Amino acid sequence: MAKLSVYEVLNRKRRGDALDRADIEGFVEGFTKGEIPDYQMSALLMAIAIRGTTNEEMATLTQSMLRSGEQWALRDQYDFLADKHSTGGVGDKVSLVLAPWVAACGVKIGMLSGRGLGHTGGTLDKLEAIPGFNARLSRSELERCLDEAGCVISTSTAGIAPADRKMYALRDVTGTVESLPLITASIMSKKLAMGASALILDVKTGSGAFMREYEQSRALARSLIAAADGSGTRVEAFITDMDRPLGIAAGNANEIIETIATLRGEGPADLEEVTRAQAVRVLVMSGRFDEQTAATLLDEKLRNGAALEQCRIWIKSQGGDPAIVDDPSLLPSSKTVIEIQSPRSGYITKMDTYALGMLGVDLGAGRKKQDDEIDYPAGIMFDKRTGDLVESGDVIARIQLGQRAFDSSELSARYFSAVQIGDTPPPSRPVIHELITASEKES
Amino acid sequence: MAKLSVYEVLNRKRRGDALDRADIEGFVEGFTKGEIPDYQMSALLMAIAIRGTTNEEMATLTQSMLRSGEQWALRDQYDFLADKHSTGGVGDKVSLVLAPWVAACGVKIGMLSGRGLGHTGGTLDKLEAIPGFNARLSRSELERCLDEAGCVISTSTAGIAPADRKMYALRDVTGTVESLPLITASIMSKKLAMGASALILDVKTGSGAFMREYEQSRALARSLIAAADGSGTRVEAFITDMDRPLGIAAGNANEIIETIATLRGEGPADLEEVTRAQAVRVLVMSGRFDEQTAATLLDEKLRNGAALEQCRIWIKSQGGDPAIVDDPSLLPSSKTVIEIQSPRSGYITKMDTYALGMLGVDLGAGRKKQDDEIDYPAGIMFDKRTGDLVESGDVIARIQLGQRAFDSSELSARYFSAVQIGDTPPPSRPVIHELITASEKES
Repeated sequence: MAKLSVYEVLNRKRRGDALDRADIEGFVEGFTKGEIPDYQMSALLMAIAIRGTTNEEMATLTQSMLRSGEQWALRDQYDFLADKHSTGGVGDKVSLVLAPWVAACGVKIGMLSGRGLGHTGGTLDKLEAIPGFNARLSRSELERCLDEAGCVISTSTAGIAPADRKMYALRDVTGTVESLPLITASIMSKKLAMGASALILDVKTGSGAFMREYEQSRALARSLIAAADGSGTRVEAFITDMDRPLGIAAGNANEIIETIATLRGEGPADLEEVTRAQAVRVLVMSGRFDEQTAATLLDEKLRNGAALEQCRIWIKSQGGDPAIVDDPSLLPSSKTVIEIQSPRSGYITKMDTYALGMLGVDLGAGRKKQDDEIDYPAGIMFDKRTGDLVESGDVIARIQLGQRAFDSSELSARYFSAVQIGDTPPPSRPVIHELITASEKES
Repeated sequence: MAKLSVYEVLNRKRRGDALDRADIEGFVEGFTKGEIPDYQMSALLMAIAIRGTTNEEMATLTQSMLRSGEQWALRDQYDFLADKHSTGGVGDKVSLVLAPWVAACGVKIGMLSGRGLGHTGGTLDKLEAIPGFNARLSRSELERCLDEAGCVISTSTAGIAPADRKMYALRDVTGTVESLPLITASIMSKKLAMGASALILDVKTGSGAFMREYEQSRALARSLIAAADGSGTRVEAFITDMDRPLGIAAGNANEIIETIATLRGEGPADLEEVTRAQAVRVLVMSGRFDEQTAATLLDEKLRNGAALEQCRIWIKSQGGDPAIVDDPSLLPSSKTVIEIQSPRSGYITKMDTYALGMLGVDLGAGRKKQDDEIDYPAGIMFDKRTGDLVESGDVIARIQLGQRAFDSSELSARYFSAVQIGDTPPPSRPVIHELITASEKES
């Protein structure tokens, strides 16, 4: 590669000109190696955040960040390997249900996942509520679990996308977090490192989502798909609802319990619907099933207990105690539950799901800072959600306390600052909004 | 001041929102003290370079940078003190002629000036061609010179606008040099530090100017005036021509000789015209003269030798040998002069003055890097300039070599790659384009 003129690259992006492939690759590589200092990268990040990128620049940025670290290309080792990613929300336990359910159908699925930060929970935190569960697998351990259980969920290892870690740390302190191409490159550089055959994205929309507005969510979905162009991983994206919590449980231990109930066919309808739709697409993308066959097979695996059995095998393969599947009391549980009663009759018209997620964080179920500790029993059960009819005095939520003490009237006041009850039912929102299967070309 | 949220300031500027006074002041102060790291300042610089600023933000930025260091407020010590600044060009020796000429009229003028970098010469470098001349004065030495000679030109001291030095070093490596508000704040934070009563700006336009296009030059002039709003220094700006070199000489020792000739009333007409116009405005701004009286007085001081005598006094006050005024052979002189002859008859239709300035740099008259040494005798005499009629074989330029050797045919080829000769005279350009006396309010 010709010697990169960092100065010229920054000048070009400042003016709004598109960067060449070699410019972007050289910049990311130089930054990762420490040859390009933070102050030049932060200038580039700000220029990208303001000027935006073409889809081509974004795919190059993503794949340069990906190439800064290990690329496992696991698709070369398996006939077919699926991956799944959610942009996060409150009560989002889809990955936990999806993994053993799909594996029970004979389709391998693996995810390098993240921990919770802010109002959204983290899949790994939830799994770590299970006694013994090891979510920090080496690559060879991950492959062993895939072989044994057909599914695996583990943390991303230090070798993956080091450029992203360094860049994210800078974005965090330079006001460049809110940038569609930078968000996209950060997510996809990590997701593409495992090298799955196919990746299903669950882009949330609504008050508890990262992108609250529908058009933003759609733009993110399209952007994520575009960033994978030419990577060898086929990507499809669902846009699903996060204007109220998904399912009843939000927390860690309580979400494991809800996951198991769902694998038993006794979960909340919205959670099952979202998971089923994604499972169908995964099975179809494997090339072994059409939509109808996939749906039938998934139903069968739920009804006959195969999905639940796969969950036991999976938990065991990652060192967890599979007995929790049949005896949830083996999970850490809350000693104090505070019931939130409705002060009036009517319909729940609105839940500020972001605020409810932050309430969960304050209970101990999530993190404000990266090194905060998780309090596994802490959480919220949303017994009544947007659209539900309630009577005065009904328990509409149960707040499960962990280590931290709270005053019940204060909790109730805080709960109702986020939840509204009115006389008429709100307009209903679908659980699944849209499936996007290909990126739109930029005009 | 409330604790500054650097992150929020960066987010706001990224989105294109205007910053508050306290935000800008806190950012500059924190950066100067080392509390805000380079990577955050470079993100702000990029955001400003792309989003621009309001005039109010720019004035606040300028004055925050000014307040990062010493503020001399010399206007409080003198009835009236003038200052002058040029955006730079090739052969621009206006400051050297202006200072003693104005001082000869009894009006004090002081300048904290810079060294040359790139195609533009530096006033201090030119003065340092004079044996013994001291251009590194302390504040008290500067005041003594002002008292003795009525004029002084010295380098900016380390105590002035340290924020600008730190910010410029970052801009230089982050592609954020080309930004009107940042350029403005950098220039004016240093100029306002001396605290003159009035400042005359000479904004150049044309092929040898920092801003080549007329509208850019005008925008810079307006911006520089706006940045001084509320500073206590009254500012006016000329836009003058730099589409060809100003005067005949470009270099260091040769410009001192031309300066003296001009103070004797024997200088090039364009140089005298530009200097006279600025001198008139300085005298008028002092409040002691109207335009007519000022013009008459200036003429008299040139004719009666008072301006030249003031130059001797000035050089002496700064430690230089005043004998050079009467015997230019005391200046370092070129041993080898290469004549450039016109290959044809016709009119000089175009001079790429930037390229000619860079030729001067290569001869040793200027700097490519900040620590390059100046070769004082090196330079160019532009005997014929744009618009002049030449005969085939006429000497149109004399190249004065310093330490570095050059092949004469190579020099001639390079000269004519920057200078065009054609059959018809080019459209004439005025020497003085415009005088701007007040900033336009932003709509």
